[in-house]
Amino acid sequence: MWIKDSWDEAEGRSISIKVTDECARITSEFQEIVIYNTECFGRMMVIDGVIMLTEFDEFAYHEMITHVPLHVHPDPKNVLVIGGGDGGTVREVMKHSVENVILCEIDKEVIRLSKEFFPDIASGLDDPRVHIINENGASFIKNHKNTYDVIIVDSTDPFGPGEALFREEFYRDIHTALIADGIAVTQSESMFYHKETIERLFSFNRNIFPLVKYYYTLVPTYPSGIIGFSFCSKRYDPLENIRPCIPAGLNYYTGGIHRASFVLPGFMQKVIRG
Amino acid sequence: MWIKDSWDEAEGRSISIKVTDECARITSEFQEIVIYNTECFGRMMVIDGVIMLTEFDEFAYHEMITHVPLHVHPDPKNVLVIGGGDGGTVREVMKHSVENVILCEIDKEVIRLSKEFFPDIASGLDDPRVHIINENGASFIKNHKNTYDVIIVDSTDPFGPGEALFREEFYRDIHTALIADGIAVTQSESMFYHKETIERLFSFNRNIFPLVKYYYTLVPTYPSGIIGFSFCSKRYDPLENIRPCIPAGLNYYTGGIHRASFVLPGFMQKVIRG
Repeated sequence: MWIKDSWDEAEGRSISIKVTDECARITSEFQEIVIYNTECFGRMMVIDGVIMLTEFDEFAYHEMITHVPLHVHPDPKNVLVIGGGDGGTVREVMKHSVENVILCEIDKEVIRLSKEFFPDIASGLDDPRVHIINENGASFIKNHKNTYDVIIVDSTDPFGPGEALFREEFYRDIHTALIADGIAVTQSESMFYHKETIERLFSFNRNIFPLVKYYYTLVPTYPSGIIGFSFCSKRYDPLENIRPCIPAGLNYYTGGIHRASFVLPGFMQKVIRG
Repeated sequence: MWIKDSWDEAEGRSISIKVTDECARITSEFQEIVIYNTECFGRMMVIDGVIMLTEFDEFAYHEMITHVPLHVHPDPKNVLVIGGGDGGTVREVMKHSVENVILCEIDKEVIRLSKEFFPDIASGLDDPRVHIINENGASFIKNHKNTYDVIIVDSTDPFGPGEALFREEFYRDIHTALIADGIAVTQSESMFYHKETIERLFSFNRNIFPLVKYYYTLVPTYPSGIIGFSFCSKRYDPLENIRPCIPAGLNYYTGGIHRASFVLPGFMQKVIRG
């Protein structure tokens, strides 16, 4: 059986992935979560028909959403991850000398299924420095001011439970929740397929944060094969403040990739400049 | 109707593209060529079931296979393009002050169909500086020694008519056909899906050329959303010799992208180092 990504499919294009069997299918309070074994990408998680991750290429996403901000902030101790219930982002965060990590994932079923079917990806979730909160991220952040060194928004796409995480109000709350030199990085879709979403994010984030930049990583199983991030910073420039101490065992992130990931093709520079 | 890429599909993965109608279907002496209109990518050319190009993203491929070598060689006058019958590479080559361009495309039907269905892409083919030869590229190059400043191999994949273009013998003939400071750039597949092909190319090219590097571009309709190139050079380093005069009207290539495209993720550095 072949699985398409339902969001992308509606546009007349999609990666198709051949699955060999279905491991689990759960309808949670918020969404339908399905786990498949695939022929060539290992295990795969699909939420409401949208491909969330595969074992084959999750490293490229999780390393880049995490190690870029954590190599820019000089001393990240308190980190908030919104979304990211599979645990991959937390796994990467724990490779740094952080003291306190909050994972705010609205759907506890995502966490439960990831622990069962993706034990390597979920491996950081049992670390005593990690505190899991099952709450709406957009609500949670309103109650936390001047608290976090780094906030990572490892969200789904701008509809369903993830819709609120693409609104201006949410980004204003992120700004308030960061300390004076804090950094936020948010999942910000594909520069080929979602220019309007990215333009909208940048149009208001330029007014909220002193420094906003876009960078990207290569993820073959995501729409168009890439996914980007908004780098929203109160003080540090991601190209001028890079700590050199890279954790061992990474497969994507390097100091060179850090810099190169902010270099955008000509057509995308125009989108970002507004 | 949805079209998959047949090469990729055999591996259990593929982009699927919704087509609205078929414009042409020709069985030439060498291969089956089909032209479709798609729902979201404009017109598309498919050869033997493999997606060759779409109007949506061909610029990212043609700009990067062309402008990288033509910004490194200080004075490219004689250029050979092998394959590339659609004309997109030649269109980009003609933006430089070249004197003589040979397009060696084995299948004249590709050229004819491109002129009919992709007039913008084929627009450079009627330039008086361009000479079209319908011959097997691997045979043609054996008869031309010490001739070209730049050779661009804009090939299909390592099977069918393109198979000979991935052999060591062909690269040795390329070396012979280049002048003393010549540069060759060759289509070299995806770093996510075709590591073995890339490893093989690099294992022999390191013994043929003084300098071999790998760079890539983003093409959503190709397998994994990226495609890479081998940069094979007799003298010039692509990161140390970059002419600053960039043609107007490009949508992908910039000086920054030139440099960033050679920066490879950690896992790929290991493949290239051998």
